[in-house]
Amino acid sequence: MAINAYAAMAAKQELQPFEYEPRPLRPHEIDIAVSHCGICHSDIHLIDNDWQNSVYPLVPGHEVVGTVSRAGDLVGHLQVGQRVGVGWQSGACYTCEYCSNGEENLCQTKTATCVGHHGGFADFVVADSRFAFPLPDQLASENAAPLLCGGITVYAPLKHYDIQPHMKVGVVGIGGLGHMALQFARAFGCKVTAFSSSPDKEPEAKQFGAHRFVNSADPKALKAIQRTLDFIVVTVFSDLDWMAYLNALRPHGKLCFVGAVANPITIPVMPILIGHKSICGSATGGRPMITEMLDFAARHGIQAQTELMPFELCNDAIARLRSNKARYRIVLKR
Amino acid sequence: MAINAYAAMAAKQELQPFEYEPRPLRPHEIDIAVSHCGICHSDIHLIDNDWQNSVYPLVPGHEVVGTVSRAGDLVGHLQVGQRVGVGWQSGACYTCEYCSNGEENLCQTKTATCVGHHGGFADFVVADSRFAFPLPDQLASENAAPLLCGGITVYAPLKHYDIQPHMKVGVVGIGGLGHMALQFARAFGCKVTAFSSSPDKEPEAKQFGAHRFVNSADPKALKAIQRTLDFIVVTVFSDLDWMAYLNALRPHGKLCFVGAVANPITIPVMPILIGHKSICGSATGGRPMITEMLDFAARHGIQAQTELMPFELCNDAIARLRSNKARYRIVLKR
Repeated sequence: MAINAYAAMAAKQELQPFEYEPRPLRPHEIDIAVSHCGICHSDIHLIDNDWQNSVYPLVPGHEVVGTVSRAGDLVGHLQVGQRVGVGWQSGACYTCEYCSNGEENLCQTKTATCVGHHGGFADFVVADSRFAFPLPDQLASENAAPLLCGGITVYAPLKHYDIQPHMKVGVVGIGGLGHMALQFARAFGCKVTAFSSSPDKEPEAKQFGAHRFVNSADPKALKAIQRTLDFIVVTVFSDLDWMAYLNALRPHGKLCFVGAVANPITIPVMPILIGHKSICGSATGGRPMITEMLDFAARHGIQAQTELMPFELCNDAIARLRSNKARYRIVLKR
Repeated sequence: MAINAYAAMAAKQELQPFEYEPRPLRPHEIDIAVSHCGICHSDIHLIDNDWQNSVYPLVPGHEVVGTVSRAGDLVGHLQVGQRVGVGWQSGACYTCEYCSNGEENLCQTKTATCVGHHGGFADFVVADSRFAFPLPDQLASENAAPLLCGGITVYAPLKHYDIQPHMKVGVVGIGGLGHMALQFARAFGCKVTAFSSSPDKEPEAKQFGAHRFVNSADPKALKAIQRTLDFIVVTVFSDLDWMAYLNALRPHGKLCFVGAVANPITIPVMPILIGHKSICGSATGGRPMITEMLDFAARHGIQAQTELMPFELCNDAIARLRSNKARYRIVLKR
């Protein structure tokens, strides 16, 4: 049975209808009939070959929701017809020290849903069942799809760096990732500050959970909040005045990158040293953390705010994301 | 009673004999009859006004050991004649959230022994008794003096960043700080790697506790140890190939600065993000940690390897330290 997908045939090109024959299902694999697929900035990086690891034809889509249509012989925990989600990662070795410890995202032989494998901009996708997550009933597919990559991307740093309810958390960039980060940080019990260069986002940022909104384009506003935050999650890709954010941290504070900032950052050592501060990073989470994140999101009503578009308009959707117009996440829907 | 000291009268000058009248002893203060005083790189930074906060005449010396000669009215825990040590910090507010939590080193109104206060290159020094630490009997004064600043500087990061016995720790720069860091890391139970651009230091580095010695001037040697370390303490001040050290870290690894590297560091975000790595820093510790460090050093036989020189030769001692000839710490002795 051929799969009907949308693929970039070369770097930076528009997607085209693309039909391919999947190889026979392996014992741990499932076929998923895709109902929804979020669009993530990483899809654009892949289409553009920004990371020099893209393989064409490239079918994007790694925030996939659908139902199991077929299951391999060794799949015991998922049933045909069950709703599942698949995110950035599609496989791991399952035996190294990181996999053994539930940190498959740190496995050195991990595989990605859209790198050397066709993703979810399609009617069907083949997935390793061990990276297909049943979705709690409370989560609507269109709001849950972006949790599978964007959601875990901003949930993981709060977990990795042991964020406690009494802490003060900043979120830099209120977009696809940032609007979920605000919700998670608020649900963690933290005092939440949103940083955005778009002052018109203030009301929505507060609805997402921010107690405070700082116009990041205003140096005075940044200076006024010196030494007030324990943790700052940076979701943007552009160069900012990193010193201003380091100064916004209290002692022991951490400036955590979750977006692949294009240019290296330059930082003086002294303020890090004196304040016991850290520059750190986080990229997705292992299977236990993804499961936990979905459960947490369901319990706290955390969901992506999405714009729904049909798969046929995937190029329009990508153009909208490229121009930063999406509020806040675009999800393709069958 | 006048105090006979050695002072820099202006930035970058040689020290000169300098006599001053101390102000009357405050209730929490003690006079210490100085027997030993270590020389730390920070003394040179202060003499040179590198941090723009030096006050002249400047009496250096913040690794002081001596005996209590007089005690103010409110000093209950120290006796005249008792041996004590004083390090970098000489006071704090004792009431802020950091002081309340035993992290006086993060107090915003902390004071330093040699900034706006005359230090230990003298026959006597006036000190806040709350920052004078009784020394365990097992520690000889000449080997203990450098623990009071250099020792806590390299002990603190192991504590702040929760270094566990199974971990693999690197120490960059095997000098005044580094040779103590090797001893502490070894006593923590860790596998210890010494990095030095002086291959002749290998035998001594191994005596101090290193399991492995890496010639940091050899890019191939650095490359060969990729992804092997959990924690790297950087004790040097110069610019190194920070990417090589980031690459030497395993996932979750931390590159920790304890020396005031003069130039900003430039780091790409991607390897930090993918590997969940951190760039962090640490600067001394609070009173409970200093007390704990002294007890730990006594129990494990950790001590500075020192060259003893008389106070009269303090300028020769400083010149020797400036030219990186000290092996490993110079201590002035009455």
